Order: sequence, then structure tokens, then C-alpha cells
Amino acid sequence: MAKKILPIAAMEKLLKKAGAARISLSAKEAMREILEDIGEEIGEKAIRLAKHSKRKTIKKEDIKEAAR
Amino acid sequence: MAKKILPIAAMEKLLKKAGAARISLSAKEAMREILEDIGEEIGEKAIRLAKHSKRKTIKKEDIKEAAR
Repeated sequence: MAKKILPIAAMEKLLKKAGAARISLSAKEAMREILEDIGEEIGEKAIRLAKHSKRKTIKKEDIKEAAR
Repeated sequence: MAKKILPIAAMEKLLKKAGAARISLSAKEAMREILEDIGEEIGEKAIRLAKHSKRKTIKKEDIKEAAR
């Protein structure tokens, strides 16, 4: 789902860091959408894990466990 | 690896979108690191796919295939 939260410029930086020379705009947009979807999934799982531990605050360990 | 390319505020937005009420700073930092690592991995694979297709420009289809 399109959330458009991550900046397109950051997608370009990540792809250049990976070694890309030229990147189309739609490739950056696809990257943003994929990372946002993954991020939302991790977030939802992390929230369940925090609730499971009777906490209201999402902590680092929730994120790390959710991403496993 | 710490790249610090994605904004922390965007991590907060993604986590709130997922339904989080309170999020520790280190949770946002962990989220950033995980998404950056995934992004770099997708980027590296996308670059190989573009080269495989004898292209220098990373296109949307490279990103999508790399993320499968």
C-alpha cells in the first residue's frame, strides 16, 4: 500500500550505497513501497510482542524479534 | 551496518501507522537499521539483475524481482 512516508532521496542514497549508478524514478518509488510495507509488517508484529509483554511502549527488542 | 540514511521521524510515522502508541528511540533506531539493511540487500540484488539484462539503469522490475 502506498504510504509515501520514506523520502525518495533516501531510496536513491541506499541504492547508490549498494553500488547503483543510475536509478529510474519508478525504481526508487518501488523501493519505497517495499520498505514501507516491510516496515509496517515489522511494526504490527512488534506491537503484538509489546502487548504480549504487557508493555505499551515498543522497545528495541520488540522490533528485533519482529524482524526475525 | 549503521548507515543512518532513513530519517528517524519516518520510522516513527511507520510505527504509528502500524498502530503503535509509544515507541522508544532505540526501537526507531533498530527499525531504521533493519530497513536500511534490507534496502541495501534489495539494491545489490537489483544491480545484479540490471547487469544481467545488460542495463546500467536500475528499473522498477529489478527492484520488484530483487524483493521477491
